[in-house]
Amino acid sequence: MKPRIGVIGASEINTEEYKTAEIVGSEIAKRDGIVICGGMEGVMEAVSKGARSQNGLVVGILPGSRAEQANKYIDVPIVTGFGHGRNIIVVSSSEAIIAIGGSFGTLSEISFALRLKIPIIGLNTWNVSEQIIQTNDPVQAVDKAFSSISCSRNSGL
Amino acid sequence: MKPRIGVIGASEINTEEYKTAEIVGSEIAKRDGIVICGGMEGVMEAVSKGARSQNGLVVGILPGSRAEQANKYIDVPIVTGFGHGRNIIVVSSSEAIIAIGGSFGTLSEISFALRLKIPIIGLNTWNVSEQIIQTNDPVQAVDKAFSSISCSRNSGL
Amino acid sequence: MKPRIGVIGASEINTEEYKTAEIVGSEIAKRDGIVICGGMEGVMEAVSKGARSQNGLVVGILPGSRAEQANKYIDVPIVTGFGHGRNIIVVSSSEAIIAIGGSFGTLSEISFALRLKIPIIGLNTWNVSEQIIQTNDPVQAVDKAFSSISCSRNSGL
Amino acid sequence: MKPRIGVIGASEINTEEYKTAEIVGSEIAKRDGIVICGGMEGVMEAVSKGARSQNGLVVGILPGSRAEQANKYIDVPIVTGFGHGRNIIVVSSSEAIIAIGGSFGTLSEISFALRLKIPIIGLNTWNVSEQIIQTNDPVQAVDKAFSSISCSRNSGL
Repeated sequence: MKPRIGVIGASEINTEEYKTAEIVGSEIAKRDGIVICGGMEGVMEAVSKGARSQNGLVVGILPGSRAEQANKYIDVPIVTGFGHGRNIIVVSSSEAIIAIGGSFGTLSEISFALRLKIPIIGLNTWNVSEQIIQTNDPVQAVDKAFSSISCSRNSGL
Repeated sequence: MKPRIGVIGASEINTEEYKTAEIVGSEIAKRDGIVICGGMEGVMEAVSKGARSQNGLVVGILPGSRAEQANKYIDVPIVTGFGHGRNIIVVSSSEAIIAIGGSFGTLSEISFALRLKIPIIGLNTWNVSEQIIQTNDPVQAVDKAFSSISCSRNSGL
Repeated sequence: MKPRIGVIGASEINTEEYKTAEIVGSEIAKRDGIVICGGMEGVMEAVSKGARSQNGLVVGILPGSRAEQANKYIDVPIVTGFGHGRNIIVVSSSEAIIAIGGSFGTLSEISFALRLKIPIIGLNTWNVSEQIIQTNDPVQAVDKAFSSISCSRNSGL
Repeated sequence: MKPRIGVIGASEINTEEYKTAEIVGSEIAKRDGIVICGGMEGVMEAVSKGARSQNGLVVGILPGSRAEQANKYIDVPIVTGFGHGRNIIVVSSSEAIIAIGGSFGTLSEISFALRLKIPIIGLNTWNVSEQIIQTNDPVQAVDKAFSSISCSRNSGL
């Protein structure tokens, strides 16, 4: 199976965060990874757009009950109807997480990833644990995410 | 977005049902549809195998909390950890449903599809509503599923 | 712990069904049982009203994300925000189920109860399995529900 | 409806945290509030024990699929089968939250409470937002929780 990278962050973001998320998506697709995200606006849209620009596969795990609520770059909308309850699914379905900025919704996802021992790479995000690998460079973030997946798969975790 | 066909049925099945599900998967992939299923054994495995044989994309929405529990033909495991609670996600994420045989778990999914007015094609399955389009032919079942999706998309539903 | 009886049925019902559900709620409360229901209108409201008239405890497992959506007889609103995904919680939290009439949402709950081997007593409801104990009398339905719980508890299930 | 106070914290705790949680439960029950918790060990058990000692009502929203997994002080087990996905239900069902210590699971619940603007009182817990009302005194924590509920109810929120 192709590596699955969860990318999380706020739905309301500035231009710089949008650009960062777009690069992250593009770099994941270049390395033949699947982008898992929440399927909506902001970071979710930007990472989807970036991945699609490189013909990558983008999965959007939606809070609402209609596929039409997905941003236009989503290939596979997963329609949960579970509201914020879908956050745990975004995290559990990912082999590594890249967190970009983000508010309390993102913090809930970071918490779940820490709880489940899923590697997290942080780009200007919550600093609630030393287990979060912090970086300022989106390309490096993607490199680290792929490295952590190789490491997990090889160790049989 | 590519058409998303949910294929549901029991995890314990006989050889004939396995063959039927495999044909359904293969035919969905030939028509460039995405297979959505529960990701486990039986009908879920057979439809996944069939779709993969034609290079189709297969999404498995898993009840458990580990991606490794997916059958080996799944491209995108969605790890819910929600047990039977994932059934509603299988249904909501699909534009049409093909039900093959099945027991009470399948009946819960058929009920949700009827509740949400998602078209269902039945192959030797529960006959609880006239809204279920019954057929004995797996190729015809796939044809009808794609027709119902075209119809829904064109009518703006 | 007090016996927990799940009462399920449609949100749109006629006067007779309302009266039946009210008796069921009243009889559960008289026997010191807890009513578990979906917390909304129709059968859910009637059974809650009946139980409250006898000072019984009523738990409403709500589909939406606001406690205020509960009917006015609910003592303990459980706010899931999971839409139809809450149906599995209504069933799993109950030691026996009484189904009154009902449409496809009710059928999904009956299916889950059959899947989980939770006893179901049916009052003019779906007849999809011989395992559903059918009756026309609401008092008898409650008697049978309590008997099945005693049986389960004694057998250590 | 009686005030519903969610009490969250780790399943592995020390004697002091156990005592604190027990006082919190006892004080909630004295003020005729309902305790909402995760239903398991540690803080969840201690708060349940405290509440029951004062004949309070205790609701346990369980991660697993069996009511028997609840601690012995739970009056109403809500059986979700949703694993960590039940955390959002604990939070959404509460009108105010008291967080006692806690690790990443607790942090996910604090995040959801902040996201949903549900008042949080913290007893030696995560300090991720100024919106968390920090205190060292369990009685004061309960007082503040009840005050915040009165305030919310009066303002019509």
